[in-house]
Amino acid sequence: MADTDLQEREEPVEVRESGAELDEENRLKPDFVDDVRSSLEEGDTGRTYELVEPLHPADIADLFELLDRDERRHLAAAITDLMSSEVIAELNDYVREDMVEDLAPGAVADIAGQLDTDDAVQLIEDLDEPHQRSILAELDPENRAVITAALAFPEESAGRLMQRELVAVPEHLTVGDLIDYLRQADDLPTEFWEVFVVDARFHPIGTCQLSWIMRTPRHVALTDVMKRDQTLIPVDMDQEEVALRFQKYALISAAVTDESGRLVGQLTVDDIVHIISEEAGEDTLLLSGAGEGDINEPLRDAYSARVRWLIANLGTAVVASAIIAAFGAAIEQLVALAVLMPIVASIGGNAGTQTMAVTVRAIAMNQLTRSNTRRILWRELRVALMNGATIAVLIGLAVGAIFSPALGGVIAAAMVVNIIISGMAGVLVPVAFDRMNQDPAVASSVFVTMITDSMGFFAFLGLAVASGLVNA
Amino acid sequence: MADTDLQEREEPVEVRESGAELDEENRLKPDFVDDVRSSLEEGDTGRTYELVEPLHPADIADLFELLDRDERRHLAAAITDLMSSEVIAELNDYVREDMVEDLAPGAVADIAGQLDTDDAVQLIEDLDEPHQRSILAELDPENRAVITAALAFPEESAGRLMQRELVAVPEHLTVGDLIDYLRQADDLPTEFWEVFVVDARFHPIGTCQLSWIMRTPRHVALTDVMKRDQTLIPVDMDQEEVALRFQKYALISAAVTDESGRLVGQLTVDDIVHIISEEAGEDTLLLSGAGEGDINEPLRDAYSARVRWLIANLGTAVVASAIIAAFGAAIEQLVALAVLMPIVASIGGNAGTQTMAVTVRAIAMNQLTRSNTRRILWRELRVALMNGATIAVLIGLAVGAIFSPALGGVIAAAMVVNIIISGMAGVLVPVAFDRMNQDPAVASSVFVTMITDSMGFFAFLGLAVASGLVNA
Repeated sequence: MADTDLQEREEPVEVRESGAELDEENRLKPDFVDDVRSSLEEGDTGRTYELVEPLHPADIADLFELLDRDERRHLAAAITDLMSSEVIAELNDYVREDMVEDLAPGAVADIAGQLDTDDAVQLIEDLDEPHQRSILAELDPENRAVITAALAFPEESAGRLMQRELVAVPEHLTVGDLIDYLRQADDLPTEFWEVFVVDARFHPIGTCQLSWIMRTPRHVALTDVMKRDQTLIPVDMDQEEVALRFQKYALISAAVTDESGRLVGQLTVDDIVHIISEEAGEDTLLLSGAGEGDINEPLRDAYSARVRWLIANLGTAVVASAIIAAFGAAIEQLVALAVLMPIVASIGGNAGTQTMAVTVRAIAMNQLTRSNTRRILWRELRVALMNGATIAVLIGLAVGAIFSPALGGVIAAAMVVNIIISGMAGVLVPVAFDRMNQDPAVASSVFVTMITDSMGFFAFLGLAVASGLVNA
Repeated sequence: MADTDLQEREEPVEVRESGAELDEENRLKPDFVDDVRSSLEEGDTGRTYELVEPLHPADIADLFELLDRDERRHLAAAITDLMSSEVIAELNDYVREDMVEDLAPGAVADIAGQLDTDDAVQLIEDLDEPHQRSILAELDPENRAVITAALAFPEESAGRLMQRELVAVPEHLTVGDLIDYLRQADDLPTEFWEVFVVDARFHPIGTCQLSWIMRTPRHVALTDVMKRDQTLIPVDMDQEEVALRFQKYALISAAVTDESGRLVGQLTVDDIVHIISEEAGEDTLLLSGAGEGDINEPLRDAYSARVRWLIANLGTAVVASAIIAAFGAAIEQLVALAVLMPIVASIGGNAGTQTMAVTVRAIAMNQLTRSNTRRILWRELRVALMNGATIAVLIGLAVGAIFSPALGGVIAAAMVVNIIISGMAGVLVPVAFDRMNQDPAVASSVFVTMITDSMGFFAFLGLAVASGLVNA
C-alpha cells in the first residue's frame, strides 16, 4: 500500500467472531474480565497489555465500563498506546467524563486533536466551563475554532453531532475529475459515503452516492449523476428529529446547512444509530422516572432524578389515600373492602400503563397525529371494554364465591369502570402533553397513575356505598 | 444520463424541507390529510393524485397509516402508479399485511418481483401459508427460489433480513479492474457501500469501502486496499444481536455467511436502523405488557396480548390482597392502616419500576454482565437507601402530625424496608431472567410488582402489629 495515499485510513482491526474474549452474545466473558482484573491487581502490566491487545476498540471501551473506577485508571495506565481515539469515542459518556476529569488539559487536547469533530465535541462538552476553557487553550487554533463553533450550537443539536470533514465539490466537474481529485486530496474525512455538489456560495445543489460515481464513465458530468433532491439537516435541528429523518428516509449520510443554506458539515448514520437507540430506549426510562437511567451515572444524579419522581408519586398516592379516608366508615363496616380495593387500583394501573406505553411510543415515532387521534381513542376504548369485561367476570365470580355475590357485583362493575377510565387516560394524557409541546414520556405516568389509583378506589368504595352494601 | 448504465438507480425523489404537506416535525399536516380525505370521499381521483404526487414514498406510507381501513383502499386505487416498491417497503407491517390480503396473488407477486429480497420477504412473511404459496407460484423461478430460501430461515434472523444482491469480486483484481467491472455490470444492487472480496469457494476474505477504492490508483491490487478483518454475520443470527453489532462496530454494511462460511448476502444499515429502533423501543411496551404495542395491530391481537398480562397481574394483586386479609383484625382496630397502606405499596412499586427499567435497559445494551452485577447491585442498594430515607422522613413527619407519632414511625420504617426490597428486586429479577436466557423485559414487571405490593402491605401492617400499635 506504499504507493497509495490511504495512510489516513483506520488500522485494520480484528473482529473475532468466536474470539476467546467474547461470549456468544458478543459480550466480554466474565473469565476474561477476571483475568484482566487480576493482572491489574498484580501490577503485571505486560500481562494486561497482552490480554487487551487483541480486542476491538469497541470491546476495549466495554472493558473499561465493566471495571470499577480505580481499575479503570490502572488499565488506562497499562495500555496507553491502545487507548486510541476510537476507544475514547466508544466509551460511555459518564465513564469518559470521569476518566477525562483526571487528565491534564494538554493530554485531553492531544486526544481531541486526533478525533473527528463530533467525537472531540462529545469528549469535552460535558466538562465544566473552566476545564473546557483550559483544554481549548491547549488545542491548535484550527481545531479550537471548529470545536468552539460546535459548542456554540445547542446541546443535542445537529451542529453538535456533525462532522466538519466532508467531500464537497463544485458542479462543473466530471466523474473523472472527481476521482482524480479524491486520489490526490490528502485532507479527506476518514470515511465518507456520498459526495456533495455545491454551487459558488457553497450551497448544496445535489448529492452523489459513491456507488453511482463508480458505475459511471469518467467523461460524464457530475450534474448528470447526482440526485438534486436531498434531505438537508438544518444545523439547529434536535437530535431526536435528526434520528427520525435518518430512519424515515433510510439515509446513510446527510448534508448539514446553516441558516443561510451553506453546507457546514455532514452527519453519517454510524453516529446516528447511537441516537436512534438512545431516543427509542429513553422512553422506558422516562416513563419509569429513572432519569438518564444509565448504570454509569454518578450516584447523586441518579438519586436526585429518582427521588424527585418518588416525591411526585407520593403526592398522587396521598390523593388516593384521601379518597380512601373519605370512605373510612364504609371500611370499618366491611373490612373486605380494604382487602379488595388494591386489586381494582392495581389492575386499572396496569391497563393504563399499557395504553400509555403504546401511545407514547406511537407519538415518538410520529405515528399518532391529530389526523388519527380519534381513531386511536376509539380503538383503545374498544380494547378497554374487552379487557374490562374479561377481568370483571373473573374477579366478580371469585369475589362472589368467596365473599358475597353483592360484593362480587360491586367489584366487577368497579373494574369495568376503572379499566375504561384508565384506557382513556392512557391515550388522552400523553396526547395532551404532546399538544402542549411537552415530552409525553416525562410526565404522563404521574398523571395516569393518579387517575387510575384514585378512580380505582373511588369506583369500588363509591359503588359499595351506592349499592347499599355499606353506609357512607 | 443516456450514456450511463444507471437506469437501475432509484428515481430521484423530492424531499421538501418545508413542503406544504409537512409540519415542523416532519409529520403530515392534519389539514393536508383532511384534504386527501375529502378528495377520497368525493371520489375526485384527479385531486387525490395531485395532492399525493409530490410526497416522498416514506410520506405516502405515513399517509396510508393515518387513514382508516376503507380510506386506504380508496387511496391505493386512486394512486396506483405512485404505489412504488419503496412505499410498500416503508409501510407499517400491519397496514401492509392488511392491504396485501386484499390483492390477488398475481398482483402481490408483481410487487414482490420489483423489491429487494429483504423487502419482498417482509411483504409476504406474515401472510398465511396458502396465501404465501399462491403468491410464490406466481413469481418467476429465480425470485421464487430466493424468497423461498429466505423464508426457510427463522423469523427475525439475519437470513430473513439480508439482501441477496451484493458486489463480490475475486481477489486477483486491481482497483481499475473493479471499476471497469462496476461500470459494465448490469445486475448490481441499487445501493451498495462496500465491495466484498471472496476466494474461489466464495468465502469472504476482505472488504473495501467504496471511498478507499475511489482514492486509490487503478493499478493497485484490491488485496492491498481491502481490510482483511471484518464483522461477519452468521445467517441464523437473531436481529437483536445483528442490531447490536451494527451499533457497536459502527457498520454501514456487513457480509452474511452460511454455516460453511460462504458469502450469501449482505445487510445494510438502512435496514438495520428500523430494527435498532424497534428493539430499543420494544422494552417500553414489553415492560408494560402491551405486547407488540403497535397502534395498527389488529384489535383481537392487542386484546389477547394485554388481557393475558392483566390476568397475570390479577394473580399478583390477589397475593397482595391475601396479605391484607391476614391483617383484617388490625385494620378493623385502626382504619388509618387501610387509608395509608396503598402509599407504601405504591411508592415501593415506583422505586422498583425505576430500578427495573435501568436494569433491563443495561442488559439489552450488553452493559450489565456477570462482571459488574455485584457493583450495580451495590450501587442500587445505595440509591435505595438514599431514596428510602428521604421518602421516610417526608411521610413519617406528615403521618406523625396528622395521625400519631407512632403511626408515623411505623410508616417511615415500612417505607425504608419496602424501597430497599424494591430496589433489590428491580435488579435481581431481570438479572435472574437474563441468566435463564429469558428476555428480562417480558416477565420482570409481574414479579417485581408482586414483590413491591406484597412487601409494602406486609411491612406496613406487620410493623404496625409488631410495634404494638394494634393487635394481630
